Amino acid sequence: MTVISRLAAAARSVLLALCLGLPMMVGGLSPAAGQGAGQAADPLPSWTEGPTKAALLDFVKAVTEPGRPTFVDPADRIATFDQDGTLWVEKPVYSEVSFAASRLRAMAETNPALKDEEPFKTAISGDEEAMGRMPFEDLKKIILLALRGVSVDQYRMEVVQWLETARNPRLGRLRRELVYQPMREVLDYLRGNGFRTYIVTGGGQDFVRAYSQRLYGVPPEQVVGTADAVKFGYDAAGRPVLTLEPSLLLEDIFGGKPEGIHLVIGKRPLIAFGNSTGDRQMLEYAKAGAGARLSLLVLHDDARREVAYGPALGLPASEVGTFTQALHDEAKARGWFVISMKSDWKRVFSFEPMP
Amino acid sequence: MTVISRLAAAARSVLLALCLGLPMMVGGLSPAAGQGAGQAADPLPSWTEGPTKAALLDFVKAVTEPGRPTFVDPADRIATFDQDGTLWVEKPVYSEVSFAASRLRAMAETNPALKDEEPFKTAISGDEEAMGRMPFEDLKKIILLALRGVSVDQYRMEVVQWLETARNPRLGRLRRELVYQPMREVLDYLRGNGFRTYIVTGGGQDFVRAYSQRLYGVPPEQVVGTADAVKFGYDAAGRPVLTLEPSLLLEDIFGGKPEGIHLVIGKRPLIAFGNSTGDRQMLEYAKAGAGARLSLLVLHDDARREVAYGPALGLPASEVGTFTQALHDEAKARGWFVISMKSDWKRVFSFEPMP
Repeated sequence: MTVISRLAAAARSVLLALCLGLPMMVGGLSPAAGQGAGQAADPLPSWTEGPTKAALLDFVKAVTEPGRPTFVDPADRIATFDQDGTLWVEKPVYSEVSFAASRLRAMAETNPALKDEEPFKTAISGDEEAMGRMPFEDLKKIILLALRGVSVDQYRMEVVQWLETARNPRLGRLRRELVYQPMREVLDYLRGNGFRTYIVTGGGQDFVRAYSQRLYGVPPEQVVGTADAVKFGYDAAGRPVLTLEPSLLLEDIFGGKPEGIHLVIGKRPLIAFGNSTGDRQMLEYAKAGAGARLSLLVLHDDARREVAYGPALGLPASEVGTFTQALHDEAKARGWFVISMKSDWKRVFSFEPMP
Repeated sequence: MTVISRLAAAARSVLLALCLGLPMMVGGLSPAAGQGAGQAADPLPSWTEGPTKAALLDFVKAVTEPGRPTFVDPADRIATFDQDGTLWVEKPVYSEVSFAASRLRAMAETNPALKDEEPFKTAISGDEEAMGRMPFEDLKKIILLALRGVSVDQYRMEVVQWLETARNPRLGRLRRELVYQPMREVLDYLRGNGFRTYIVTGGGQDFVRAYSQRLYGVPPEQVVGTADAVKFGYDAAGRPVLTLEPSLLLEDIFGGKPEGIHLVIGKRPLIAFGNSTGDRQMLEYAKAGAGARLSLLVLHDDARREVAYGPALGLPASEVGTFTQALHDEAKARGWFVISMKSDWKRVFSFEPMP
């Protein structure tokens, strides 16, 4: 046991004792506990002052201040976040596709025929710009072939290892550094106010669970994703094992997002974040509930600090993370907030200095 | 982030998680609330002193006492419970089938042909003893027809209303009174020790979610069940709506239980409870993990206070909740505990006086 884990264990037992002694004060304490000492400190320092930041702060007040008609019990404070393009960079292609391509490269050593068959040929070549131009169905083929027959434990371990060193070729950074700092602040801010934060991703559930706690503070059970079919069986030693199958149980995109939310959570989110047409139905579903609700879309309009794509507002079109003009129009009509990376975020990544 | 601030952040989230878990206990079923002040009070008063109760107490100590090699972080303290026959009575037939039959009776008023077609004819007749002898496939047909095209919100509301007055014909009691008191104590005891308690049921996820909080203190997001396909769409006013479809996304029974656990939780339970062959794979999966593990089976051997069925140990055979001799042999071979209702439980239901 390291010093840190011993300290953490000691802290846990002290807190457990404290907490058990204070059950009646819990409701009033939790927001303060979440924000530490500085009640007055800005919980969203990377956000520019303006209507979007104000809407976030007002929304949290509306659902957490006791006595407000819009107050919501902590048990029902559910926030959902798309991942790719909403919490971290999705260009030139989804990280999961890049990981799958690395697995296919290894598979091609014993099965060279893969190198001659598209879309695997391009994946094995490692050309992520080309993968980013593929239709979605080709990306699915790459992902499903790469995970076939792997145990869920082995898969998770490989993703963890891969993410240690995997780099984004376009931005020249480790992928795990490419989390949007303003969104990390929102995750912390909501959790500090009694929300449970869920990731609801078109990406693979097992893929995202491998790092969700580390990168976002979101535990595996709060990741709703596109779910590969998993088969229960026994290994050679007779031990139970769960193995990934090359088919999908749930496609967690478009209408599949509210369906996946119902399957795993069974509660309608109060606040939802997305960035593309795949998130539309989730945002409609969240906003259509009673009481205070907030739906928000990240717009990638900052070519200098990240990548600019749409095609909404005349931004370059994109196969990955499409944000159409129709989605923009719907956002305006329904009172969703469109987050401009360029003007709403003082910094995009944690490694940028605060201006 | 410094080590100290990371620790502080970790401590905050542990405190918050613990605190969020408390209102539920305070609200109703906590051991302390049920028994008055005493920390030293027996957390399992309805259990006879003996090896099963001792195993439960020892297991909880093993995973919660800091410094023990088997200590488990609260984030990973997952307990899973089958429902029908493990948490409440499943005879003569599952409550969900009885509810579905009541819906079919209403449907038959506009569609009388249903009254002539088996298995719907028997369901509509209300003969639960006859339904209890049906093969599982017939029960599925009844359930799937009954929920077709209903919105998830409407369905939940109807289940809540139905359970207000629904009675078990064999035991002559309200169904909601037929929760096993010793199991309710186990749920409270585990939650009081930082566990999250999940129901993992072959029953319908939407059905069980309608009352899981009220009867067991288990919130909807901790119910893993057989999942009906749900379809996202819009109602006549253009509002988003989720509608039940007459097909199954996940059959949460046999190997489907560990598969469902992986889908919704993504963590292996430390302790699992079941009562029939449908729970076998879940119990194998839980017990096969590293560290302290416990798998337990409720054996219905008490014809006086409940219903006796097996066919293990020469008990009467049963189509509903089958507990075979092979399952009993496996339990003994693998070190699972078989809970005898007759000898391990001082009382079965909360309405019985404590002996």
